[in-house]
Amino acid sequence: MHKYPRHLHQLIEQLKRLPGVGTKSAERFAFHMIEWPQDYLHTFAMTVQGIPDKLKLCEECGCLRGEEFCAFCRPTRQPEQLCIVASPKDVFALDATGEFQGLYHVLGGLLSPLEGIGPEKLSLHKLKERIARFQIREVVLALDSTIEGDATSLYLKQELEPLGIHISRLAFGMPMGSSFDYVDGGTLARALTARSKF
Amino acid sequence: MHKYPRHLHQLIEQLKRLPGVGTKSAERFAFHMIEWPQDYLHTFAMTVQGIPDKLKLCEECGCLRGEEFCAFCRPTRQPEQLCIVASPKDVFALDATGEFQGLYHVLGGLLSPLEGIGPEKLSLHKLKERIARFQIREVVLALDSTIEGDATSLYLKQELEPLGIHISRLAFGMPMGSSFDYVDGGTLARALTARSKF
Repeated sequence: MHKYPRHLHQLIEQLKRLPGVGTKSAERFAFHMIEWPQDYLHTFAMTVQGIPDKLKLCEECGCLRGEEFCAFCRPTRQPEQLCIVASPKDVFALDATGEFQGLYHVLGGLLSPLEGIGPEKLSLHKLKERIARFQIREVVLALDSTIEGDATSLYLKQELEPLGIHISRLAFGMPMGSSFDYVDGGTLARALTARSKF
Repeated sequence: MHKYPRHLHQLIEQLKRLPGVGTKSAERFAFHMIEWPQDYLHTFAMTVQGIPDKLKLCEECGCLRGEEFCAFCRPTRQPEQLCIVASPKDVFALDATGEFQGLYHVLGGLLSPLEGIGPEKLSLHKLKERIARFQIREVVLALDSTIEGDATSLYLKQELEPLGIHISRLAFGMPMGSSFDYVDGGTLARALTARSKF
């Protein structure tokens, strides 16, 4: 490959830090950005640089809160239920369903020995303190259905059970609109086990 | 969907300007960038902002030249052949093959009535001037195999034929390593027509 100009090479390398972006996509993005008008580039650079200042995590729940007061900590929310998620992004997806009116707690990750994330990184102390302070009655574990998500759910169950609160986890089953042909065996097995009266 | 903080919303909208990036990908990128360390964000912002200054197009051939003298206009290149491409990115891909040692000419686009790109946007005057100045003997049309690429190739052929130079176009046929099952009929037809002695 003919060597790219140094600045282009740097741009490509930095774009490759985005999730799921490899060399090919980064090159495509970079060559596209070269054609952006200067004000697009300027506002984009300003937006990127403004991230640390303008997008903060709520110190209470760990959700993303922008510059204002955290929308997920408003007193209008029902304080009896606490939904535990791995990342701030999950909160928006869950809240969009309109099915949950309680409080959220962002763990900031899932247990993963491979990535060096042990129980000490999950801010369990903070979680227990919030459960006590808000007199939470039900904790909803809304974590990935992966090995890490399962391990974290089990760990949290074990840690929170002595508190005598109701602990639930999101249901497993067939995704909405899914065809039988494309549902894997593991999902089918769980959907069968958890079948409900119709 | 719960409303994202304003700055996050702006970031997502700006990321959607990248080619092939829709709302879902832009959200994924944005939430990933929120977790980047501050120096990543800073250098990325600086790189983006530096694009107009540091990545210029060569005024002679239209290739990307960085801050130095254009690598594709070096006197060591064979000046008898001129390869016509649509965008600066194509030049790097072609040059990486090592099969072409001549000069390049970037059109900056393909004829596309839908996008409002007519013949007047293709800098034909400049192209003809270069062909005369370098005493080009062969013009290689290295354009997409699409309706726009075909139209542009035909148009250029028609315009350049009176100059009495050899005009060629990239070969069409089966991609290297392709299996018969996955080659479409159009490609097979052209591969058959252009079959060569084996």
